[in-house]
Amino acid sequence: MITREHCAALDAADTLAHCRARFDLPADTIYLDGNSLGAMPANVPARIERALKQEWAHGLIRSWNDADWYPAPQRTGNKIATLIGAGQDEVIVADSTSVNLFKVLVAATRMRPGRNVILAEGTNFPTDVYIASSVAEMTGCELRCVDPDDIVAAIDDTVAIVSLTHVNYKTGKRYDMEAVTRQAHEAGALIVWDLCHSAGAMPVNLNRCAADFAVGCGYKYLNGGPGAPAFVFVASRHIEAMRQPLTGWHGHSKPFDFTHDYAPHPGIDRMLTGTAPQLGVIALESALEAFDGVDLDVLRDKSVALGNLFVELTDQELKGLGCTLASPRDAEQRGSQVSLGHAEGYAIMQALIARNVIGDFRAPDILRFGFAPLYVRYVDIWDTIAQLKDIIATDAWNTDEFKARKSVT
Amino acid sequence: MITREHCAALDAADTLAHCRARFDLPADTIYLDGNSLGAMPANVPARIERALKQEWAHGLIRSWNDADWYPAPQRTGNKIATLIGAGQDEVIVADSTSVNLFKVLVAATRMRPGRNVILAEGTNFPTDVYIASSVAEMTGCELRCVDPDDIVAAIDDTVAIVSLTHVNYKTGKRYDMEAVTRQAHEAGALIVWDLCHSAGAMPVNLNRCAADFAVGCGYKYLNGGPGAPAFVFVASRHIEAMRQPLTGWHGHSKPFDFTHDYAPHPGIDRMLTGTAPQLGVIALESALEAFDGVDLDVLRDKSVALGNLFVELTDQELKGLGCTLASPRDAEQRGSQVSLGHAEGYAIMQALIARNVIGDFRAPDILRFGFAPLYVRYVDIWDTIAQLKDIIATDAWNTDEFKARKSVT
Repeated sequence: MITREHCAALDAADTLAHCRARFDLPADTIYLDGNSLGAMPANVPARIERALKQEWAHGLIRSWNDADWYPAPQRTGNKIATLIGAGQDEVIVADSTSVNLFKVLVAATRMRPGRNVILAEGTNFPTDVYIASSVAEMTGCELRCVDPDDIVAAIDDTVAIVSLTHVNYKTGKRYDMEAVTRQAHEAGALIVWDLCHSAGAMPVNLNRCAADFAVGCGYKYLNGGPGAPAFVFVASRHIEAMRQPLTGWHGHSKPFDFTHDYAPHPGIDRMLTGTAPQLGVIALESALEAFDGVDLDVLRDKSVALGNLFVELTDQELKGLGCTLASPRDAEQRGSQVSLGHAEGYAIMQALIARNVIGDFRAPDILRFGFAPLYVRYVDIWDTIAQLKDIIATDAWNTDEFKARKSVT
Repeated sequence: MITREHCAALDAADTLAHCRARFDLPADTIYLDGNSLGAMPANVPARIERALKQEWAHGLIRSWNDADWYPAPQRTGNKIATLIGAGQDEVIVADSTSVNLFKVLVAATRMRPGRNVILAEGTNFPTDVYIASSVAEMTGCELRCVDPDDIVAAIDDTVAIVSLTHVNYKTGKRYDMEAVTRQAHEAGALIVWDLCHSAGAMPVNLNRCAADFAVGCGYKYLNGGPGAPAFVFVASRHIEAMRQPLTGWHGHSKPFDFTHDYAPHPGIDRMLTGTAPQLGVIALESALEAFDGVDLDVLRDKSVALGNLFVELTDQELKGLGCTLASPRDAEQRGSQVSLGHAEGYAIMQALIARNVIGDFRAPDILRFGFAPLYVRYVDIWDTIAQLKDIIATDAWNTDEFKARKSVT
């Protein structure tokens, strides 16, 4: 039998426990939704205040040079590169994940002119499928969506690009990046990895896997704040051939020459489009300091331990309460979340949130719990399961308020 | 002879003079670059601090509902609508100007399937031309760039879309929006107006002109901060037919149903792509309060008066110093800026900035001065001309430092 005391002992022995103090978290809340919006690193407000009151208000336009705003997307990209196994100058911060995916997919189709299939996963996060569908329409390609288990078998010599998310947003199921990338390459295809649910939650080894492209968002495990800018990775061997379609002036080799013809920047800067959303980039850059000195293997170990504890406590405490495990039981196949299925999932999650235990709900029946290893404690897992047990066992979710409550995220 | 006293008297009589206190401006600086980065409205830092410390840190994911983050792009778009003559629910805040232009141009080509020319202006701001060029390549259209004076004559029945910027970034020359829009419509074309250099500087009457589409940025005269999100206008009669290519989940009719197929939102929300950059949207929304109670005709009158004063003082004070007027002399044809040509423009602007008088330089020889009527004073114009005169007359610009100084904006 696992007890709360056991969980507290795990926290006492946690070598990442000190990282929690790097975040400004409400004392009365258990937060297992860092895979939707990461918690706020405590250093962000002071950095933003300086950006506003000194750099913007006092420095004005001069701050593009004097406060180093101009190279912030590159600088922040390089910081993210260290978290995802990319080299320096292979990652840049820009736009949203959706917009970056559009850029990458169009550019990738141009690199495989004899092939016309974009292979994707039907159960991927919808925006990835929507964008791939639009790219297919604009480039004359066919979007072929298959089940996750059928991806590898579906990679044939008509496939130009395989577009996958490393960790599924709903189930938390994780692909073997190295194996699938190899398979794609053996068939002559290129591969794009969406890292929204893995960057900052575990080591990602883009270059060791020889991945071609990747995109990911800044506001989940990277803690960049609501709607933080996203990032895009292009393997250095592809950069020179990369012709992305959102050819805004900041992707130009000399944007301030204001020439008539577009000439892409020789490096990763060509993935930029418009003026960088500076407040968002600055928040993200300072947020990344929460990872300073953190060993990503240790981070992954804690993530796995939190997930395994959640699964074990589900077995132990929630038996007979209608919960199913909607994530892989094997941690090796799992990202940093555990999802439970329950027919009354929506109302149960609302009841849980009303008790300041925050996860989220994904239609039709998924209760989703994310474990950001920098700030989630083992006792948080215990307390969450205890509240879940009480809410379900006592029918506390079964009220009009919880069943009808508006929730968009 | 115009004197500084005369200018001070104009300030004393200025009915918009009180608006300057709505901004946090450095006391020792004259700022004539609000057309590149608007000054900071004084209410922004407190609003952002609340967004960080209360909404993000304490509210966490709940703030998408509880702090009304989710409808912020629509709400802020509606506020901008009142400044540009658009109706409610015809404007939304999203992405960058470049990205929004891509969306609009692709969607517009789909509405004119029998035509294949995108007509643009060769001297437009480069990003507009770069994006139009990419759209032409992807849609099989031809991008035809002509001189500004030849635009109207070039609108024939092969033209699908006319893509123009209302006020030219370099010369400040302003199109007659109503006449050119009519001309485009008479030839069966659609028209896109880029309002980067007019929104917030003068009344814009999109619906009175029957404009089809518009885009514009949030960080110039709207004062939304560095890299603030941009806006996009779609006339209500076009919204239902608008199929834009950046089909991210936030443009979906029901983004949180997470369905496999893309179904665009019935309204202006279909112009959204990814998650809104909340910090940027919040800064822009609060910045727009600087326009509260401001009559845009009065704003335009002051803008014209500031521009005319600048031109008159150029004539009076800078005679024989090598300056040419690079903007229209007739205020009716001018936006809210005056540009001067000078062979040593780059170094002169650097010398001016070193004296805390901030305009900007545009290659090859343009000194650019923008007049944000909410905070620029008549004496600022006098003092700028006086410094310019001194710098040029005494060769103060002629140093290695000023000639070589790095400046990107």
